[in-house]
Amino acid sequence: MEHLAQRVAVIGATGYTGEELLRLLVRHPHTHLTYISAKDDRKARIQDLFPHLHGKLDLECPALNADEAIACCDVAFLALPHTVSMQVAPLFLRAGKKVIDMSGDYRLRDAAVYETFYKAAHRDTENLRHAVYGLPEIHRQQIAKARLLSNPGCYSTGAILGLWPALTQKWVAPHDVIIDAKSGVTGAGRKASLPLHYSEVNESIRAYKIFSHQHVPEIDQALSLSSGADVRVIFVPHLLPVNRGILSTIYVKLQNGVTVAQLQEAYDAAYASEPFVRVLPSGQLPELKQVAHTNLCTIGMAVDAARGVAVIVTAIDNLGKGAAGQAVQNYNIMCGFPETAGLA
Amino acid sequence: MEHLAQRVAVIGATGYTGEELLRLLVRHPHTHLTYISAKDDRKARIQDLFPHLHGKLDLECPALNADEAIACCDVAFLALPHTVSMQVAPLFLRAGKKVIDMSGDYRLRDAAVYETFYKAAHRDTENLRHAVYGLPEIHRQQIAKARLLSNPGCYSTGAILGLWPALTQKWVAPHDVIIDAKSGVTGAGRKASLPLHYSEVNESIRAYKIFSHQHVPEIDQALSLSSGADVRVIFVPHLLPVNRGILSTIYVKLQNGVTVAQLQEAYDAAYASEPFVRVLPSGQLPELKQVAHTNLCTIGMAVDAARGVAVIVTAIDNLGKGAAGQAVQNYNIMCGFPETAGLA
Amino acid sequence: MEHLAQRVAVIGATGYTGEELLRLLVRHPHTHLTYISAKDDRKARIQDLFPHLHGKLDLECPALNADEAIACCDVAFLALPHTVSMQVAPLFLRAGKKVIDMSGDYRLRDAAVYETFYKAAHRDTENLRHAVYGLPEIHRQQIAKARLLSNPGCYSTGAILGLWPALTQKWVAPHDVIIDAKSGVTGAGRKASLPLHYSEVNESIRAYKIFSHQHVPEIDQALSLSSGADVRVIFVPHLLPVNRGILSTIYVKLQNGVTVAQLQEAYDAAYASEPFVRVLPSGQLPELKQVAHTNLCTIGMAVDAARGVAVIVTAIDNLGKGAAGQAVQNYNIMCGFPETAGLA
Amino acid sequence: MEHLAQRVAVIGATGYTGEELLRLLVRHPHTHLTYISAKDDRKARIQDLFPHLHGKLDLECPALNADEAIACCDVAFLALPHTVSMQVAPLFLRAGKKVIDMSGDYRLRDAAVYETFYKAAHRDTENLRHAVYGLPEIHRQQIAKARLLSNPGCYSTGAILGLWPALTQKWVAPHDVIIDAKSGVTGAGRKASLPLHYSEVNESIRAYKIFSHQHVPEIDQALSLSSGADVRVIFVPHLLPVNRGILSTIYVKLQNGVTVAQLQEAYDAAYASEPFVRVLPSGQLPELKQVAHTNLCTIGMAVDAARGVAVIVTAIDNLGKGAAGQAVQNYNIMCGFPETAGLA
Repeated sequence: MEHLAQRVAVIGATGYTGEELLRLLVRHPHTHLTYISAKDDRKARIQDLFPHLHGKLDLECPALNADEAIACCDVAFLALPHTVSMQVAPLFLRAGKKVIDMSGDYRLRDAAVYETFYKAAHRDTENLRHAVYGLPEIHRQQIAKARLLSNPGCYSTGAILGLWPALTQKWVAPHDVIIDAKSGVTGAGRKASLPLHYSEVNESIRAYKIFSHQHVPEIDQALSLSSGADVRVIFVPHLLPVNRGILSTIYVKLQNGVTVAQLQEAYDAAYASEPFVRVLPSGQLPELKQVAHTNLCTIGMAVDAARGVAVIVTAIDNLGKGAAGQAVQNYNIMCGFPETAGLA
Repeated sequence: MEHLAQRVAVIGATGYTGEELLRLLVRHPHTHLTYISAKDDRKARIQDLFPHLHGKLDLECPALNADEAIACCDVAFLALPHTVSMQVAPLFLRAGKKVIDMSGDYRLRDAAVYETFYKAAHRDTENLRHAVYGLPEIHRQQIAKARLLSNPGCYSTGAILGLWPALTQKWVAPHDVIIDAKSGVTGAGRKASLPLHYSEVNESIRAYKIFSHQHVPEIDQALSLSSGADVRVIFVPHLLPVNRGILSTIYVKLQNGVTVAQLQEAYDAAYASEPFVRVLPSGQLPELKQVAHTNLCTIGMAVDAARGVAVIVTAIDNLGKGAAGQAVQNYNIMCGFPETAGLA
Repeated sequence: MEHLAQRVAVIGATGYTGEELLRLLVRHPHTHLTYISAKDDRKARIQDLFPHLHGKLDLECPALNADEAIACCDVAFLALPHTVSMQVAPLFLRAGKKVIDMSGDYRLRDAAVYETFYKAAHRDTENLRHAVYGLPEIHRQQIAKARLLSNPGCYSTGAILGLWPALTQKWVAPHDVIIDAKSGVTGAGRKASLPLHYSEVNESIRAYKIFSHQHVPEIDQALSLSSGADVRVIFVPHLLPVNRGILSTIYVKLQNGVTVAQLQEAYDAAYASEPFVRVLPSGQLPELKQVAHTNLCTIGMAVDAARGVAVIVTAIDNLGKGAAGQAVQNYNIMCGFPETAGLA
Repeated sequence: MEHLAQRVAVIGATGYTGEELLRLLVRHPHTHLTYISAKDDRKARIQDLFPHLHGKLDLECPALNADEAIACCDVAFLALPHTVSMQVAPLFLRAGKKVIDMSGDYRLRDAAVYETFYKAAHRDTENLRHAVYGLPEIHRQQIAKARLLSNPGCYSTGAILGLWPALTQKWVAPHDVIIDAKSGVTGAGRKASLPLHYSEVNESIRAYKIFSHQHVPEIDQALSLSSGADVRVIFVPHLLPVNRGILSTIYVKLQNGVTVAQLQEAYDAAYASEPFVRVLPSGQLPELKQVAHTNLCTIGMAVDAARGVAVIVTAIDNLGKGAAGQAVQNYNIMCGFPETAGLA
């Protein structure tokens, strides 16, 4: 089957997520990158900023001119900070373009919850109503029809994929879920910042935003809607001295008598046909390094049946399955391409 | 007051813990290092193995000759693997020497539990009965009289100090405690090992020994004895890509109505006069880098009062408060030295 | 044009180079991986050792059975230690298979020099005579006809590409070349080893094998043959606390009056049509991170014209252009595939 | 002998060098820290910024009020950026206080050279004339009498100590010296900066300021004055992904016939009585990790006698012997304290 190539714009091309998107899209078989932009008009060509793009991409990287972008693209990826995306997305949507937004602006259905966690009023509730939350393993059908795709948060992706099969089995107490997550530093964005200075992060680790991270309501919403339970997680993120990856160690209370074999079987079944989720053989646990530079999520688990406790561990690359990789996966679904195109 | 200097032997001087002990003891004001040994007879002088000791220590580092060691020491620090310590400690004890053992051999009162977790029968149950568990903040009185001091495990130290004040207040459900711990690589020992190869650890993190780590029964025993409750923790250790330090993120269920202010006050009170425990001001959380190369434990906390959940975070240096530093602190107490001697 | 796919065997598939080769070959458009082996018969399937291969490769990974391998492959990549390769390569060559050897066994034309630097007698001088040294930028024509391809050393690749244009211009004193190279740890191989323990390498750097590294005669030989000068370099390698990459800082004496503009122009011209060498714009210098996970070599330079000194800096990924990537590039040339196939 | 304790001010206490100074001075036996300040008035007490100081220091950390500082100190350490130091030092000197300046402002005798390399006119040429360059191994006598002590640069310290013995022997061609230096990131200062972002530095290395680093004229000046030769070095610094330490790999041309044994002997002799320089036994080379958190400089060397080339490698901690440690060593000499006081 011949696939019609799409003309693609990447808005916000010089952050870590934007750079990873470019890396993926230049080798995507059905894509023409036609427009890129970045906050500061660097006057540079993108291949001079990122030498690995030389010979694959030859574009200027100016500040966003929405009219120019709209004139030459079918699909726009927004790799922008929250609060900025909701100002830009409407321009593309109004012009009939598909939008894949990687910020948090369209993830929460309730604008009031958005305001609580993002400390800003929502300015595009109109489009918010139609946004599709893009976790392919759960929402593939809706994604195929989406015009505004909201790409999940990095922490949320690792957490949801680790909990969804057990929750849909009704095996897990939905108010008694603890997620201890450890993220690489690219997750915090490419910006000058003293707490992200090499020597502040290296040889250290710290927890932050205990109980209050903006991915908490996103995880609760996604898991509640998909499982029917009223899920409310405890979530503690940590800043880990690595570039890429999130390891999520998830603690749940299991219903009486659920064994590790049953749990393993349920996860095997849930993800058997998923190209980007890999349930590890019994006894193995994820390592961050195994998923770096991939679109994979690996999952391992252990059960203390006597105490009714399970520990589920998931690993993703925060720039892969946690951001740009998953965005390309969603793009493939939205455009009718093979879901693994450009991600192999 | 004049303190009588002690003659000290370090058995197992070339591992990470042994090296850190030497670093501390050469600058200890009341100590003469008279004997050191290591597994393999390197024929080298210790200052040639560790250039930072040059000018401070000038000793050969042969394989252990217990008679020679006994002849010239008052106190022996054992920085040996478990199962080896219990063969060596009796020799020194029989000769009337004080022993500070840094292995797991004398930490568990019940030899059967030892066998379950250490996969070896206990071979010195005689001395096991008299061993004193050396967490100074809880057992200072007994430590002062100890002849065989069992230095706590690294993970155990971070966990116990983080839980003890809340447990003694009876505020915490003792069966519903989760400890998610992240440890630097020196905790795994200085040995050739593929899983500890730089490129296997760097840019990665992994959980291991879920439910089954040998520090679990130690934590349960120490907290149950000190709080009167029947404590049974869930414990998951992770291998962190840093050299030194353990961050423990501890999740507990709080009794109805306990506030963060009350919790903070209880911790402040419990450790107010402790030279090596620092409860951070409300709102601050520990960072590993702040305790590296110190004998400190820092503690921070957050409470979701509505849900009755607290998160307590502790940070230690696994070679400091988690091993050699704490051993020196115990040594100071046992010998009547100022507790901070050599540790400032 | 249709390309005839090749059946490929990877001998030594579980080291860092072998794993990278698999990563590249599973996405290579004209390749069927038909056989893999590793030193120790792990009885595991390769996708269970490397989860990122799941869904892309499904092969057992036994100890080498040369007859089985020969029966099912057209081309064999050898990712074996030196001295082992020269025992295995003849088996495949005798059976008419093409061999791409990634060890040092076929890099040095003079078996006596081999013995001096590799501390072992050469056992296959017959095939050594016909081996083609595979640096595509210099030897593309010979590579196309090679049956035994000797893939260059990682340090050698970074050094030769950095020196070749200046040497062929006769601008550089060939006896007065200093190469200060810094390599990531995967270059030392995946093996249990105390000096490669995480905590021995992390937060450190050290020089080793000053004057005596086995890549010295390889660099001298390659540069002498290609430039006509009698090149003899001073070479000092360092072990750098990163996983991947080699930065080579090269100091040369320039002929009177050569300017930075001339030097830059000569390098631009030499590599203008090379897909995997990128001479950076004037004033820019290579960063290791820009070439990680690529087959690129980036080059930057500075000149002190008054003193007649140039500093040329090159960066490669030691597993990419320094090993597996370059091997695939050579394979593409040998098989008539587009040179960038599988390497984009 | 009783030593009269000094009252000490640290101006610029919250940078990496300032923090290290506090760490050293709180345990210094003859020092009362009476005043500290930092650029931004944080209104915090210093022990709340740096928990490891708790119980050892209890001071506010306001913006500098020079009158208050002068009123309560005998000696002022300036851990300030260049161009700021030369505005502050005169205030303390005029009031009769001793000043130890850790910036580059008083290192270069010639104000015109200063302007070339620091891009600013010198504003205190009056005091510049009397400043003493504080490398104790070379200038101990002058240091003892200094009122304005200029503490050497970090790179300079590693380079000068590595070259001085060979140069004073007249064995080395003074125009043909190459210094390839690799520095940890704390050397770049504690400041928000994108190039110092964790993910820009981690898993990377890069050269910078080739030929033009401000420590070049300092090295040339120090070595020329101490050896009598007209030394002009080639110097290339690199940013290394570690927190602390500088490894300098130094390449020199040796006079005919000088052997490694002679070279080793000259270095052994030059530093035999130095408490903080350790010439390693023949065949050993420095590792950064061995000097971290010390005031040591370790030195190793190799010679290719046939070619007349020596490689000398030195390692220091850039915050230790490269900054705060050396400053305390100088302070000890200036105040008549034992030179190792507070540095053991």
